[in-house]
Amino acid sequence: MTDKDINAKHKARMQEQKANVDKRIAAAQEDKGLLLVITGNGKGKSTSGFGTVARAIGHGLTAAVVQYVKGTWDCGERDLLEKNGVTFHVMGTGFTWETQNKETDIQAAQAAWKHSKTLLQDPSINLVLLDEITYMVSYKYIDLDEVLEALSNRPKDQHVVITGRACHRAIIDIADTVSEVRPIKHAFDNGIKAQKGIDW
Amino acid sequence: MTDKDINAKHKARMQEQKANVDKRIAAAQEDKGLLLVITGNGKGKSTSGFGTVARAIGHGLTAAVVQYVKGTWDCGERDLLEKNGVTFHVMGTGFTWETQNKETDIQAAQAAWKHSKTLLQDPSINLVLLDEITYMVSYKYIDLDEVLEALSNRPKDQHVVITGRACHRAIIDIADTVSEVRPIKHAFDNGIKAQKGIDW
Repeated sequence: MTDKDINAKHKARMQEQKANVDKRIAAAQEDKGLLLVITGNGKGKSTSGFGTVARAIGHGLTAAVVQYVKGTWDCGERDLLEKNGVTFHVMGTGFTWETQNKETDIQAAQAAWKHSKTLLQDPSINLVLLDEITYMVSYKYIDLDEVLEALSNRPKDQHVVITGRACHRAIIDIADTVSEVRPIKHAFDNGIKAQKGIDW
Repeated sequence: MTDKDINAKHKARMQEQKANVDKRIAAAQEDKGLLLVITGNGKGKSTSGFGTVARAIGHGLTAAVVQYVKGTWDCGERDLLEKNGVTFHVMGTGFTWETQNKETDIQAAQAAWKHSKTLLQDPSINLVLLDEITYMVSYKYIDLDEVLEALSNRPKDQHVVITGRACHRAIIDIADTVSEVRPIKHAFDNGIKAQKGIDW
């Protein structure tokens, strides 16, 4: 084939692909607040949630974050996002294997969930990130049915992002978009320390 | 079991877990610039990359972004991050099925790659995000060996994040941390439009 032939073939293939994409875009016409779930055992779930918050506030939307596990230590994304108008609620007990006290963990989870419910009833908040809430459901520190009810009854334009491993199937069922982040490899397993700006 | 027994059991289990975690943290002592790859077909790869940028600049690190595919239209995260000191280079031809011209696509990819190489030689940049560069390698618009060489010879403390589907195996081999984002479901497939602040 000559270069001209190759280019003509490329153009024809791309035109066909564009037609397919345009058709799918035309078919997708519904506007609604989305429930996004980012689950799985790989690295990048919370950063994806925070990236979505950055995207939303970059567009002038309002956003609020509840951090159910991380956030007790110095945290780069919180510093930046708070400076740019995002409100944070940090559960503040750290990983459960640090506290080793189930009762105080449950109390902290319940307080964070109570705050989350007020966000999920507030139409002035365009995006709510419930970071690592999945663990609280797995541990039964907060009630699955309450979570499902609050998500289902939220303002209809409000977006919600849920992150954390092993998201409960019932939450996945009512979600609009679900991604599973799988670990292929992790630097930590090769003796490399958690790096500031990357891992925290 | 009484409540007291349950709590004691919980505490013992958590102590054991903490000991394991602490042992792994103690074993991980190396400091180095990380190469992170976020690949796969699911939603959340670029937002995870941008979330990492937000985290890094929140810690006072410097960051630069090269967007190989997206970024030709209004983009929430760019607005926020540029305002906070991140430099952006946008390849600027849009999706390849929009341009339908292979030659100009290759020129644009080469220009973006040339800029990326200068970033990968600049020790004053702590984090480089090469957003959706994987497609350029797949299409052979930029040379795999050049990419591998530039990544391998970068300043030793510099972090790099690579996003995009179908990352080449040779890049995965030299990466420190690799996550694969798998699609479980996507709102778009159910007729819901791309939503401002979430999808762009």
